[in-house]
Parts: sequence; structure tokens; C-alpha cells
Amino acid sequence: VSVAAESVLHQTVARVRPAHARVPLAVQEAFDAKAKPPGSLGRLEELAGRVAAIRGTATPDLPTPAVVVCAADHGVAVEDVSAYPQEVTAAMVATFASGGAAVSVLARQAGARLVVADLGVKVPVAHPAVLDRRIGPGTGNAAKGPAMSVSQAERALSVGIELAAGLVDDGVDLIAIGDMGIANTTSASALAAGLLGVAPAAVCGRGTGLDDVGLVRKIEVVVRMLAANPVPAAEPVRLLAGVGGFEIGALAGLILGAAAHHVPVVLDGFITGAAALLAARIAPAGVDAMIAAHRSSEPGHRLVLNALGLEPLFDLDLRLGEASGAALALPLIASSVALLREMATLAEVTGG
Amino acid sequence: VSVAAESVLHQTVARVRPAHARVPLAVQEAFDAKAKPPGSLGRLEELAGRVAAIRGTATPDLPTPAVVVCAADHGVAVEDVSAYPQEVTAAMVATFASGGAAVSVLARQAGARLVVADLGVKVPVAHPAVLDRRIGPGTGNAAKGPAMSVSQAERALSVGIELAAGLVDDGVDLIAIGDMGIANTTSASALAAGLLGVAPAAVCGRGTGLDDVGLVRKIEVVVRMLAANPVPAAEPVRLLAGVGGFEIGALAGLILGAAAHHVPVVLDGFITGAAALLAARIAPAGVDAMIAAHRSSEPGHRLVLNALGLEPLFDLDLRLGEASGAALALPLIASSVALLREMATLAEVTGG
Repeated sequence: VSVAAESVLHQTVARVRPAHARVPLAVQEAFDAKAKPPGSLGRLEELAGRVAAIRGTATPDLPTPAVVVCAADHGVAVEDVSAYPQEVTAAMVATFASGGAAVSVLARQAGARLVVADLGVKVPVAHPAVLDRRIGPGTGNAAKGPAMSVSQAERALSVGIELAAGLVDDGVDLIAIGDMGIANTTSASALAAGLLGVAPAAVCGRGTGLDDVGLVRKIEVVVRMLAANPVPAAEPVRLLAGVGGFEIGALAGLILGAAAHHVPVVLDGFITGAAALLAARIAPAGVDAMIAAHRSSEPGHRLVLNALGLEPLFDLDLRLGEASGAALALPLIASSVALLREMATLAEVTGG
Repeated sequence: VSVAAESVLHQTVARVRPAHARVPLAVQEAFDAKAKPPGSLGRLEELAGRVAAIRGTATPDLPTPAVVVCAADHGVAVEDVSAYPQEVTAAMVATFASGGAAVSVLARQAGARLVVADLGVKVPVAHPAVLDRRIGPGTGNAAKGPAMSVSQAERALSVGIELAAGLVDDGVDLIAIGDMGIANTTSASALAAGLLGVAPAAVCGRGTGLDDVGLVRKIEVVVRMLAANPVPAAEPVRLLAGVGGFEIGALAGLILGAAAHHVPVVLDGFITGAAALLAARIAPAGVDAMIAAHRSSEPGHRLVLNALGLEPLFDLDLRLGEASGAALALPLIASSVALLREMATLAEVTGG
């Protein structure tokens, strides 16, 4: 299995190419000819150009979107780094699937299919709408040693790649991604600090609601995670294995898979941002497929987006994860493409 | 007609009441009980609370939206204050109606009905989908005297009030508004400067694309407009008559009419912002019905939103007008209400 996963990863990385540089210019020319002052649609023009560049055509179709949430548990939760008990992961995964979670509502509103994948919740979630993509029953405690083996990390990545490929086969051409996993801002903080080479205190935030004492403890735990897993930033897959988690690996795989299929992928908050940074370290051209939906209140998110060179579309003080912000961006993205496709030109309007 | 218009205005103003203060608290309690960390949906929680407060119920329906664009020509265009010739107003109004303008596309994307009203384009727009609500063939040049009579100003306001009432009768419960009118950022700048008591240079911007020389000329024209129409800020309807325009009066009327019917109204850029400030000076409680979609690049827009105490939902560098930003906000507003209505509670999720 490990050899197969490694092979899937290598083949995918080889297919991740920079977006077509000429396409955004053609899109800009098309917008400049529309019945409006030049540039007056602001960032929507740039957004449509970005989608077009990834798709490799100046006239992309109106998107067929999907929202994918990857969930897993984190052994580091035993270090008391979350405001919530670990059982919440499984309860929320079941709620995503049964339609009552924020992302369930937002995916419906956006007209997007919702895919929920269990990458390793401690106790398997028994719900027919949850995809079983389990790597294990939660990761190990990364403060005391590796969260997972390198071959598990490769499997997590390849599961994400295969999820993306399956969606593309089904006609999906826009993928919004999100996460669920109690303590996963701690894993994401360790991953981001390791990849960026910054101090844990610079990336750690309050997650879903830590108090001051909890935040200090979380920073100290991230310091221990990096000390227990001394991996150079140049070895991103080994760093993922060291600090976790399964769902973060799968999200990075989803990004790589989407990029390999020329499909834009919409990032959510800090967890998906850390996964995006991991994906970019594995295949730098993958950045061209990324769209940043929003900026979360986690301090590490700003650092990650800066490192990726991405400017989020909005900032609504969201700090929920589960793809909520990414799902909210889908109508904006669809509108930008609709404007490109459907607006009349100035020549048509003036009869000139 | 004038007496009737004045009477409609007075009756409407009497019906504009502050939103129900207890409703946002009930909405906050409902969100706090949902399956998510408290406050983690950020500004979406506040947005749903605002809609609920205006509607007067903690469980508002999913909105049935309309987008209304009011258009008119401005006599002050002869002062060379726009990058575009006056004929563009009529051409764009026809384009709104025939489906090829940005707002046509964005209203379709948002699932909203688009209403286009001619308040006084220089030459009437002959298109069956354009409502004839003409006050006159464009306003007079406000740099040399009043743009319109006080009774015309009252008629413009009452036309907007009646447009709102008609939409409410048809089941619309969310109204996004926008403007079209070459030179109307000049009229809006004069109106905003007069109502705010600030210097024209503080509010004037480049509109749809003035260069430096054009911007200086525009500021000088606004100085002359206010000198030619010395109206105290305490007489907002007379100030509207002085500086124009017809569509700005109708937009203020739409806001007052929506507020009187407890319907939220979504503001677009600087022109609708100036209309909103006018409406708030006529009926201060009208502010409770307003939702600011975005912040445009016109410097006056920030001053107006600050004066109204409104924080926009996003900033995408739009500077098109025609309700484009307001229409983009409709899916966000619908999503905030859907979250309030459809999310499961923590108790339901944990079986507690």
C-alpha cells in the first residue's frame, strides 16, 4: 500500500504545472471590452482570471462545485490543547452528514455537493453518507513522538488525491475544502511553524476558544511537538508524519489532486491553509490552483497566506473551520465567471 | 401631485421605527445553542440578527430578494465631471433591462428579480422592462442653480417609497439597491458634503475613471454646487432638490419605504450611501433597515458609512455602482438566515 501511495503522489506531483500565464491577460482583455468602466469590477475580474488560468481557457464553464470536509482525531488532544473533548469530532462528522452543521447549510445554499470523509476519527463514524477513508484510529500524541508513520502520511496524501480525482470524474470543476478534528489547530500550528521556520508563538491562536492559560499551554505543546519530531522543512511529508494529522494530509492531497486536474480549490481557514502550505512545499506550482476564501482569526493563517502569496476574498471573523468560509466563497467565484461569460460588450451596447 | 407626494413621504416617515432590540439577543441565544463554538460564525451571526431585528422575528424566512436600479441624468454633466458622455446612462439602462449588464448577471446569480426604473434619463429609454417613473428629462445643472424643484424632490422620494411598497406586496422581503446616471458621483458628493458638513475635497473621488485634472475640476464643481444651493443640512429634502438627482431621491425613498415595511435594504456603493444618509436625515430610525454590502473606492463612501454606523460585509475594490456590490451580498445574507433557521443545536447533536 505504501509503495502504491508513494507512486500516486509522485505521479500527481509531476502533473502539477503552473497555470497558463496568457489566459489571465485574455480574460482582462475580455473584461476591458465589457459594458463598464475598465477595472470597475475590481477583484472579481482578477478572480475570474484566476479560475480561467487554472482551467486553461479564457471562457471557463460556470463552475460545478463540491465541498469536501476531511475529519480525523489527533493524539495530541490528550495534552489539553482544545476547549472541546475529542468526542466532538465524531459528533460533528455525523452532523455534517445528516445536514445540520454550518457547512451542510452553506453547501446547500451554494448548490454544492457535500462530501464528508473520515480519515481517522477515534471511533469510526457509522453514517452511510460518511466516506470511510480511515488511516487509523486517530494519530499518536505528536508531543511525544511521530503522529503517524511516513507511509501513513503518504497514504493520507494519496487518499486526498483520489478524492479529487473521483470528483473530477463526476464533473466537479471547483472544490471547496474544510477540516474537522479536535486539537487540529495545534497540529496545523506545528506544521506551519515547521514549514515557515517561525516560532510556535507566532502561529498559535485560541482555536475554537482557548483562554490565556490554554493558549500558553498550546504554544508549549507545539514547542514539544517540534522538538520530538526534528524534521527539516525541506522534508514536508516527514514533517506531516511527525506532527499530523491524517485529515491535514488528505487536504494537502486534495489540493495536489485538484491542481493536477486543473481544478481550482478554495481554501477555508488555518487548517486548510497549513495543508495548502504543505501541498505547495511538495509541488510549488500547486499554488496557482488555490483560491483563499477568507482570513480567519488564527494568527498563523495570515503568515501562511502571505507565504503562499494569496489575498483572501473576505474577512467575516469566521473561526469555525469545516469549510464554512470556503463554501461562502463559492457564489462569489460563480458570479465572477458568470460576469466573464454573460456580460455584453461596450460595442454591443452602443451598437458600435 | 406635490401635495400627494409630500403626504406619502410624511406617512412613510411616521412608520419608520427602530428595529426590535430584543430580537438580536434572541438570535444570539439561538446561535449560541447551535452545534459550533460560540461566536465562531463571526459576522454572519450579527448579520442574521440584523435581518431578524428588521423583520421583527427571531426566525425570519429565507429572503425573497429583489434588486432595484434607479437611473436618471444629471444636468451637472455639462461641467465635464465624468469620464463618460451622458448618452451612456440610457445605453446602460437598456442593457440592464436586456440582461447584459453586470447587475443583470449578478441578480440572476443571486436568484433575485431585477427592477429597472427610469427616474429621468435625458431621452426616455424605450424598453418594455424599464419602469417609467420619470420626474423630468434629467436635472438642471446644479452648479448654476437648483437641480430640481422641492416638489420634484418629494416626488422622487415618493416614487421610491411606492416602488418599495409594490415589491413588498409581491412578497419581496429583501431589497438590494443601485444607481445609474452619468455624473451622479458629483451629485452624491455634493449631497454627502452638504449633509456631513465636510469639504467637497474630502468626499470627491475619481468616479468611473477621472484623471487628476478631472478630479480637481470635479471638486471645484461641487464647491460651486453647494454655493449655488445654500441649504442648511437640517433641510435634507431641499438639499436634494438643490444638488440632485432624481434617482438619488428615489433610492432614499426606496430605503424609507423598505424600512416602513420592516424590510432590510442592501446598500451598494457611494451613490446609494449618499441616498442612505439622506434617508437617515429624513427618518433616523431608517438606519436599522440598512445593510452595507461593500466599501467602494470613493473616499466619500467611508465617511458616509461611518456617519451611518455601518460596517460593510466585504471590500472587493468594486467601483461600478448599478447595485453590483449589493447583489453580491444577497447570497451572504441568505446564508446567514439559513444558518439561523437550519443548523442543529449542540443538544440535538450530542443527544443531550
